[in-house]
Amino acid sequence: MLAENLKSLYLDEWNRYVGHEFVKRMEHGDLPLENFKFYLVQDSIYVEEMLRAVMRSTELMPNDMAIRILSAVVLGRDKGMETHAFLEKELGVEKSRRMTMTTYSYTRHLRYSSTVGWPQFLAAWIPCMWGYSEIGKTVLNSPNKYYRSWAEFYASKEYADRVSVILEAMDRFNGDITEIKDYFVISLKFEQMFWQAALEMENPI
Amino acid sequence: MLAENLKSLYLDEWNRYVGHEFVKRMEHGDLPLENFKFYLVQDSIYVEEMLRAVMRSTELMPNDMAIRILSAVVLGRDKGMETHAFLEKELGVEKSRRMTMTTYSYTRHLRYSSTVGWPQFLAAWIPCMWGYSEIGKTVLNSPNKYYRSWAEFYASKEYADRVSVILEAMDRFNGDITEIKDYFVISLKFEQMFWQAALEMENPI
Repeated sequence: MLAENLKSLYLDEWNRYVGHEFVKRMEHGDLPLENFKFYLVQDSIYVEEMLRAVMRSTELMPNDMAIRILSAVVLGRDKGMETHAFLEKELGVEKSRRMTMTTYSYTRHLRYSSTVGWPQFLAAWIPCMWGYSEIGKTVLNSPNKYYRSWAEFYASKEYADRVSVILEAMDRFNGDITEIKDYFVISLKFEQMFWQAALEMENPI
Repeated sequence: MLAENLKSLYLDEWNRYVGHEFVKRMEHGDLPLENFKFYLVQDSIYVEEMLRAVMRSTELMPNDMAIRILSAVVLGRDKGMETHAFLEKELGVEKSRRMTMTTYSYTRHLRYSSTVGWPQFLAAWIPCMWGYSEIGKTVLNSPNKYYRSWAEFYASKEYADRVSVILEAMDRFNGDITEIKDYFVISLKFEQMFWQAALEMENPI
């Protein structure tokens, strides 16, 4: 599987992302709720911008792939939004449209990748989608009930099915891995920066 | 002048950019050449990506504006490249295509802005173009001859004329400043990060 080749090519960067201090602290339950709430706000913005990039990228996909990707994203959306809405309500999170420079930069990268070609976009998108599957399983046994609720969504079969659609689409790329690997590793770096920004509560723009 | 309104709206961010430690150390001549060489490499990559964004943005401009902008950029290009080539040769700089995350993020911002509308692109572009006029004048009396050569180009009348074309184009926007100000301030932040990356010699991707 091509996604696995990409992952093994950048295993250190992958591990720095899925094993980031933010994740470890969710797992151990000692992450302050303030940081988690900060993360939820930026993540909401991120998801919306990511969806725009998905939509833009479908223009460059074979039709059947585009339909499959859109179905996966649209069908899975309700459950993800429910989880988000539940946590935001429980924790009293105030919605905001103000991105940090990190969120802005990461989502500009996704928007840009979506204009280059579908293989480049998928390579840029996979770290987020696939990585959260892994992170969900890690955080599932957290002593903190909010972090557990969060993790349950990403560890679910429903979410795993969405990820499979994307990983299988990536396998239809039969060009050289050098054409897509930069998009993948840049997203791994942005994912690390995204956790770090939530730990440091980076000032929004 | 609209550009002046933008500048005064974000004067602190502007001053943190044009008065960054990197600039001060060029001015005083105590910036290590290694940092300057690092900067030259990233700046070359930046300029190339910036030009792509300019070209993309011209599609959205009134024709006469597009022609004027392209003329200014193309006509001024030789002198800028001469300065760059001279410094690179004198200092033995090895060309590279490897961007830092900072260079990548800043240029994705420019590429993105170039797809939104010409006023948004100009607002994002002005900090770089206009700011370097100001910085050039600051560094012009540096005791270091390389930093002086660098500054002479940006302090020249030729460069100032190019900048005027862009500032005048910006004045043709008669919408609300709230539609463009974010693009401007985000570039001011990226410019600060660009100097900082050169001071810290950020690892390329």
